[in-house]
Amino acid sequence: MATTPSKLPYLSLFLLFVFAKSQPTSAIAPRFPSSILRPHNNLHSPAFISASLDANHNPQQLYREEFFTQVLDHFTYTPQSYQTFQQRYLVNDTYWGGAKNKAPIFVYTGNEGGIEWFARNTGFMFDVAPHFNALLVFIEHRFYGKSMPFGGDAKKAYKDATTLGYLSSTQALADFATLIVDLKKNLSAVDSPVVVFGGSYGGMLAAWFRLKYPHVAIGALASSAPILDFDDLTSPYSFASIVTHDFRSESESCYRVIKESYDLITHTATQSGGVEKLRSSFHLCKKEDVDSLSGWLDTAWIYTAMTDYPTPSNFLQPMPAYPVREMCRAMDDPKTGNDSFAKLFAAASVYYNHSGTAPACFGFGDDYYSEELGANGWNWQACTEMVMPQGASDEESMFPVSAWSFDNSSCDPIYNIFPRAHWITTHFGGHKIEQVLRRFGSNIIFFNGLRDPWSGGGVLHNISTTIVAIVAEKGAHHVDLRSATREDPEWLRDVRRSEIRIIGRWLARYYHHLAHPRPNHNKRRPRVHVY
Amino acid sequence: MATTPSKLPYLSLFLLFVFAKSQPTSAIAPRFPSSILRPHNNLHSPAFISASLDANHNPQQLYREEFFTQVLDHFTYTPQSYQTFQQRYLVNDTYWGGAKNKAPIFVYTGNEGGIEWFARNTGFMFDVAPHFNALLVFIEHRFYGKSMPFGGDAKKAYKDATTLGYLSSTQALADFATLIVDLKKNLSAVDSPVVVFGGSYGGMLAAWFRLKYPHVAIGALASSAPILDFDDLTSPYSFASIVTHDFRSESESCYRVIKESYDLITHTATQSGGVEKLRSSFHLCKKEDVDSLSGWLDTAWIYTAMTDYPTPSNFLQPMPAYPVREMCRAMDDPKTGNDSFAKLFAAASVYYNHSGTAPACFGFGDDYYSEELGANGWNWQACTEMVMPQGASDEESMFPVSAWSFDNSSCDPIYNIFPRAHWITTHFGGHKIEQVLRRFGSNIIFFNGLRDPWSGGGVLHNISTTIVAIVAEKGAHHVDLRSATREDPEWLRDVRRSEIRIIGRWLARYYHHLAHPRPNHNKRRPRVHVY
Repeated sequence: MATTPSKLPYLSLFLLFVFAKSQPTSAIAPRFPSSILRPHNNLHSPAFISASLDANHNPQQLYREEFFTQVLDHFTYTPQSYQTFQQRYLVNDTYWGGAKNKAPIFVYTGNEGGIEWFARNTGFMFDVAPHFNALLVFIEHRFYGKSMPFGGDAKKAYKDATTLGYLSSTQALADFATLIVDLKKNLSAVDSPVVVFGGSYGGMLAAWFRLKYPHVAIGALASSAPILDFDDLTSPYSFASIVTHDFRSESESCYRVIKESYDLITHTATQSGGVEKLRSSFHLCKKEDVDSLSGWLDTAWIYTAMTDYPTPSNFLQPMPAYPVREMCRAMDDPKTGNDSFAKLFAAASVYYNHSGTAPACFGFGDDYYSEELGANGWNWQACTEMVMPQGASDEESMFPVSAWSFDNSSCDPIYNIFPRAHWITTHFGGHKIEQVLRRFGSNIIFFNGLRDPWSGGGVLHNISTTIVAIVAEKGAHHVDLRSATREDPEWLRDVRRSEIRIIGRWLARYYHHLAHPRPNHNKRRPRVHVY
Repeated sequence: MATTPSKLPYLSLFLLFVFAKSQPTSAIAPRFPSSILRPHNNLHSPAFISASLDANHNPQQLYREEFFTQVLDHFTYTPQSYQTFQQRYLVNDTYWGGAKNKAPIFVYTGNEGGIEWFARNTGFMFDVAPHFNALLVFIEHRFYGKSMPFGGDAKKAYKDATTLGYLSSTQALADFATLIVDLKKNLSAVDSPVVVFGGSYGGMLAAWFRLKYPHVAIGALASSAPILDFDDLTSPYSFASIVTHDFRSESESCYRVIKESYDLITHTATQSGGVEKLRSSFHLCKKEDVDSLSGWLDTAWIYTAMTDYPTPSNFLQPMPAYPVREMCRAMDDPKTGNDSFAKLFAAASVYYNHSGTAPACFGFGDDYYSEELGANGWNWQACTEMVMPQGASDEESMFPVSAWSFDNSSCDPIYNIFPRAHWITTHFGGHKIEQVLRRFGSNIIFFNGLRDPWSGGGVLHNISTTIVAIVAEKGAHHVDLRSATREDPEWLRDVRRSEIRIIGRWLARYYHHLAHPRPNHNKRRPRVHVY
């Protein structure tokens, strides 16, 4: 049974898991017994592609694959640091206005997974590229996908801390800067403005990139980027609270059935014939240990909350529009009956079997995750610097109570490395962000959908006239970055229109300043302080 | 004889050398035959202390020494990166208004040398501390002074690239951030605003620190910080041109004698009895090779130009006020005679023997530099990331022509490491700085004295209302940071008054925003974009 302490690391690794599972026609679920979740990017599923980019995009012509020789360590000069690796990036120049016109370059700052998956789930960039005549570039994050240091060999790269040690957010940002600067030189496009885009961890990277490399990117669209989900900045309970709120807002009884399910399942498992009852109620395969059942259900609730999109989607699993509502409808449907297990199974099936093609029994996930894809990457990051407090409080949460405590126990035995829990706020800030950035920095959009559990750690208020928050009350995890569809509700169209308008303003101002520079250093512009 | 190519690395390492020599009563000069200059910090000379801080400061009570446990590598998570070392910092809390009053903390971001030397040469901070009720903190740069990684053992730390590799500007900035955040917590002074100060390389670090860590420092006084002396940002000839201009502005004949000295010395050395003539003209010890004579003279011209202060000083050597003028006066003095060598020796003696206590003969420097002081630090930095182009053009320069070329030959054999010549501009920016920072960043003062050869790579024009340039036409290398004296000219007093006024404004705004925060996240402040 998923006990309270073991849930913590599981919750703290969600960000990875958002992008981890994409077997659209399979009902294979993740394994929870271990606290280590491993990603799988099924990049080549045609169903997946067609669902993530609309019919206007020919998947064959979405992008071409390129590689850039990157140094292993930007910040030190040991002989080891000079080792290089091939970093993958994807390019689409279909819509680019060209270097001569100083046409813009839109760069996706890749997150924890193969870059193709992010490219194909960021239809927004393809949608707006023609409008801006933008070159599209999607850069893969080191240690994921094909961007493997140590000879491109994931087994070597993921061997232990001596190699994995080079997987960090700061190195990734420096990779992006180095690649972009070089790419612009090679394209003779040094005057082309760069705007960075990213969702989730990629959104954090986009925002941080604008803050740390303002000379490389003129602005950032940071979608669902929980940059305040560190240290003591955000309640550790916010994530669980928002998931809870998502369900409760649809149906009080739905919420209550889930909230009571943990005790009920635990109790049932101890009864004579209870395990068999659980197996048959949830159509579990015989080999599965029902101790993992609650975790399997949690996955359904949480990822459905995150992807509670207003249109059918295929982000993590094939899903109907407003899937949380669908879950609660299935639960509350009189046809489902009054049995709690039947209700829970009906709801979970919205996540695990929306396509109706599930196998005869459900498993909790086979060990199908590929290490070649950089499987343990986010676990490493969460065990070193991405320490995002997660817990659940009784009053607010439909999940069992679990207090957050800074506990290294799940990381130490694996990597023999201790987290640097305060590094992210030391390096990137976060405390008093409104005061700090009120007169520092510019040109960042923080988008958050309030249905998204990660929005609790997001920037939800305008900080200055150019560091702005776009908040969609009905939005889920980086819904704005998804391809536009004819079914999109008006609020989502409005969000995207705002983003386009703001980015357009950044570009207009950039070109204006480029065309009308201030008098330069040649003594034409007076120095204000001369003595 | 100092040939053209061998001069290049020598010039490129100046920044170090500014702080390198301080044997006030000795005439021992640096050795130039090798391209590697090594620093020496004579921190304990009483004469030195009394000259650098005025009589109001009791040297015994200037500061207390503290140590902070710092990680070896902030940006990677290899087991090696978790090694720690003791970083030294100096604290003076005599004037501090205390944590309760949120009184400010003024931090010197230490550069390439022992921190005591910088503390004692930054009297400005002591001078203004009472006015601001500021805590003074001087943080030593890793790999210098007592802040030696690898067990505090300089021999180990400087062994080779496997250890020296951790000496970099980005690691140093992360050290500062980590130390300051921790110090504020320990002092219960998280609301105390931090202002960073630095001169020369320390000024570059101060400016970069404000840009990279705006959440740690509310502003930076970057004095004589040539942050634009990288890549193609500044003419490689600017340094030599400014030295030339300094001398030429005092006396055309002075300039001409120096300009013609190189050929004259070379020619003389080839004549029968020429070497003896040079030895006797310049009072050289018999063991010295006259091939190094021009380099020995260059040292005098260049460091005198850099320290062309309006009052007597003892920064590198004991010097009179306006020492360039004194050099040219000595050269042009009828009593000196018409012999060029006599003129050159008279001028050089202003630098090498102002105190009149020189020994019977001059040497070009014995191998007295201590490796324990992190002697080769700047050479390493110049060979890895601090690649600052230096050359001399015939038309402008009194120095022999030397074209700048990116040449690794002086670094490769020593360290077997190749410079990353574009890293500084990739990481910190520089290109189109006025456009980039016009609407990004705030609260930086760039001070430059135009007599300072390094001012060519400085920021000489206001960028925005809060990123400002203070330019003193008669100023030399970070003259503003020196202790005030009764003899200071009005322009220098004005410079410091401006700096104090601007820093005061930063602090006032900080306290105002602290006292009057915008409505916080509790839904009282409307989100501008809500959908």
